[in-house]
Amino acid sequence: MSLTDLIKTYEDLRRKIKALNYALWMISWDTETEVPSGALAYRSKQVGILSEELYKLTTSEEMIKVVKELYDRKDELDEVLAREIYLAEKRIEKQLKIPMEEYVEYQMLIAQTQSIWADAKRQNNYELFKPSLEKIVELTKKRIKYLETDELKGYDVLLDEFEEGMTSVKYDHFFNTLKKDLVPFVMEVINKKQKTFAFDKLNYPIDLQKQFVSYLMDVLGYDQKHGLIKESEHPCTSNVSSTDVRITNHYYEDNFTSGIFSAIHEMGHALYEQQVDPALDDTMLAGGASMALHESQSRFYENIIGRSYAFWQAHYPKLQATFKDQLKEVTLDQFYQYINNSYASYIRTDADELTYSLHIMIRYEIEKDLMEERITVDELPQVWNSLTEKYLGIVPRNDQEGILQDVHWSAGLFGYFPTYALGSAYSAQIYEAMKRDLDIEKELLNGTTLAINKWLQEKIHRYGQSKAPIEIFESAVNAKFDASYFVTYLKDKYQNLK
Amino acid sequence: MSLTDLIKTYEDLRRKIKALNYALWMISWDTETEVPSGALAYRSKQVGILSEELYKLTTSEEMIKVVKELYDRKDELDEVLAREIYLAEKRIEKQLKIPMEEYVEYQMLIAQTQSIWADAKRQNNYELFKPSLEKIVELTKKRIKYLETDELKGYDVLLDEFEEGMTSVKYDHFFNTLKKDLVPFVMEVINKKQKTFAFDKLNYPIDLQKQFVSYLMDVLGYDQKHGLIKESEHPCTSNVSSTDVRITNHYYEDNFTSGIFSAIHEMGHALYEQQVDPALDDTMLAGGASMALHESQSRFYENIIGRSYAFWQAHYPKLQATFKDQLKEVTLDQFYQYINNSYASYIRTDADELTYSLHIMIRYEIEKDLMEERITVDELPQVWNSLTEKYLGIVPRNDQEGILQDVHWSAGLFGYFPTYALGSAYSAQIYEAMKRDLDIEKELLNGTTLAINKWLQEKIHRYGQSKAPIEIFESAVNAKFDASYFVTYLKDKYQNLK
Repeated sequence: MSLTDLIKTYEDLRRKIKALNYALWMISWDTETEVPSGALAYRSKQVGILSEELYKLTTSEEMIKVVKELYDRKDELDEVLAREIYLAEKRIEKQLKIPMEEYVEYQMLIAQTQSIWADAKRQNNYELFKPSLEKIVELTKKRIKYLETDELKGYDVLLDEFEEGMTSVKYDHFFNTLKKDLVPFVMEVINKKQKTFAFDKLNYPIDLQKQFVSYLMDVLGYDQKHGLIKESEHPCTSNVSSTDVRITNHYYEDNFTSGIFSAIHEMGHALYEQQVDPALDDTMLAGGASMALHESQSRFYENIIGRSYAFWQAHYPKLQATFKDQLKEVTLDQFYQYINNSYASYIRTDADELTYSLHIMIRYEIEKDLMEERITVDELPQVWNSLTEKYLGIVPRNDQEGILQDVHWSAGLFGYFPTYALGSAYSAQIYEAMKRDLDIEKELLNGTTLAINKWLQEKIHRYGQSKAPIEIFESAVNAKFDASYFVTYLKDKYQNLK
Repeated sequence: MSLTDLIKTYEDLRRKIKALNYALWMISWDTETEVPSGALAYRSKQVGILSEELYKLTTSEEMIKVVKELYDRKDELDEVLAREIYLAEKRIEKQLKIPMEEYVEYQMLIAQTQSIWADAKRQNNYELFKPSLEKIVELTKKRIKYLETDELKGYDVLLDEFEEGMTSVKYDHFFNTLKKDLVPFVMEVINKKQKTFAFDKLNYPIDLQKQFVSYLMDVLGYDQKHGLIKESEHPCTSNVSSTDVRITNHYYEDNFTSGIFSAIHEMGHALYEQQVDPALDDTMLAGGASMALHESQSRFYENIIGRSYAFWQAHYPKLQATFKDQLKEVTLDQFYQYINNSYASYIRTDADELTYSLHIMIRYEIEKDLMEERITVDELPQVWNSLTEKYLGIVPRNDQEGILQDVHWSAGLFGYFPTYALGSAYSAQIYEAMKRDLDIEKELLNGTTLAINKWLQEKIHRYGQSKAPIEIFESAVNAKFDASYFVTYLKDKYQNLK
């Protein structure tokens, strides 16, 4: 086939795949936000059929053939298509290495384990979860064997799946920096006497919270012509193209900052997606480049911008006016202390900016030891608790707030956690790089983030997946990744807060 | 192929078709209710691709072959599948009769004409619309020629498309009854001095309207576990299965009954869809049987139930309590007079229960004369105006409130209008049949319609499309269609209202 014909064949398959993805996205958005409960059984059947068609398309002989042929001629392709074909070939190679029956066995196991884990957590009973987790770990190790290459061995196979190019050597280096330079500082901070805040538990009407969040979203440059904000149990960002990037949020009457910061967090994800070059929307390179890069954006906006003093210098008056009664006597300084209050917590998702990455470190060490067979599934609750004591100075009182707290492992997601911490660390280094070009504090005092958004679009967002994530990161910050920026940022901030 | 294999092949194709339909429905619901404006261009591309896949499936050689073979063996099929294959074969036969290029030409013409009509209406300029309408009429006549059979000729081809089994002989008979028995009575009513209502133009807060509508939906038995109510410009009912039947509504602060009656109307459609036998959800026989039967249900609830005295005896106190200030001094009798006030109006969609079918009669006569070449597109505004004078006693002051008011013809929908009037007439005959089994007034005074809903489910809804619509209707009322029930119902009601 001529190159033109090959490309055309590929593009024809791709447009069908994209359209089916679009349909499945639309259904999942509806499921997340408004589907009536009685509609779910019929829906899941339809989703099954559409997913099956999608799977057939992506794994068809025609697809494999055309990708392989294009891969062999990748030097003749333009840079973007070459990247797309590189990723497609990598995916197909993986697919071909895992026997179909084992793939199906694994998928079925995962599907069943979700609810087993949920039950175990509800009943605070690790023993209920253990047999399934053992099977998942066993099959995951088998998967690793199938997927190993000359470059990637063991746990690294999984790490690379979630963050292209990351290995345990690199992560070890990162976490060792945290262990050496951050952990002692964190211990100092969280061992101080805890502050209390009288305005903390007042009632903050949800419609007022929504008004304020809507104001913030505009201020932060979230484009509501290409998105919308709704509610759901778990806040999330949802999209398959740059043209329609939706956010959900969750509000609590007795915790008014929760909704504010989850909205800013999701806005960070959403802005990234909205600012990807729209030309990529018709390709498989649409959307953010990686987990860590995505998390770097959400945490940049949530923490570095959203929990900064300058940001609230601009917006606290508006917040105070929104909650006249509740915040009448609360000064900006008190509010700033409140939103940056740090303490040891059992639950990762409740953790503050300072301690969050230590929660991740616990999971990383466990995953690595588990995959490299230094510990067993049997020992996990024990290991979890002693690592929590080691890095956070507290011991979970039960498995609900220990080993059973996260959904990830029940979904087979080993290698995913470390990207959360890496993203946080990326954000601090991006912040430093941005400072060389922008007077960030001045921008924030002026009340908008337009120049900041533009900088991120230019340096990171617009590329989508058209370059490797590490390449995008390094070129944005004009340096290799260096965890010390993150440590320094946290120390500076919390030193001043003490 | 064995019969079992044939059926299996058919069912495999069908499940993919149903899943694609489901996906397209989900996207259209989102478009109707919440899509951000900047997302539409990309969306329409994806919808195009999914529709193309759907078209390929429904017109594939494999599909045609398997339907033809099953059709030849239809005596061996169970009744439901036999009906499904009968309809599929009919659709395929049609498809094969129309040359592909002409089908595409027609679709493109329709797609372009929608906005041309909208412009012409906005500018009150029929000349803008005329050339396109001429082309549509010409291509429609060509389509008729292709589709004519020994049984169906001319305009009857179109009538049968929207209401299986209906012909111009039958419609003529129906409309002649209206002309003879109803028109003189209507003239009497609408020529009386018009009543005025002081509470008419007060402000009715929309959130209170929504509360009341939500109460009514529960009272009427709309199942919110299998549906939800949202807002959109044009109220509609939206579903592809009985498990998820959604309604949209529109509220006006200065017209508080508009939202109430459009909600009840859509509820009538929705209840029909919710009460179809769920076993049909996996077949092509899901959903209401025909346009007229559907309209008979929406108008039954909107008018016969929703504008009845007994219904408001039960629910007016609640309405009055909802709008304390506005309705304080308004008696039930005044309210009843208000919601049944009849007068000659230019716009069909604003027409009341008494005059509505006369608006339809105008369109029916025009369509018939146009298709049978007794009038030309050139003469339409003239003909429209003189028929409006003849049946409603008023002359449209311009083409916006005359020939340009409806979207239907710009979408090629000739033969559709008469089903609206037929549905209204059906509802009156259904009402009479129901009275033989139920004390409807007593049910309504008790404040629920559960027994009524159940009667309709049993006699009409549950069948979906598994029987011909006329068969369902005749067996439900245990008689042939007879327009005199409709005339009698209207005369009785409006005689008492005078």
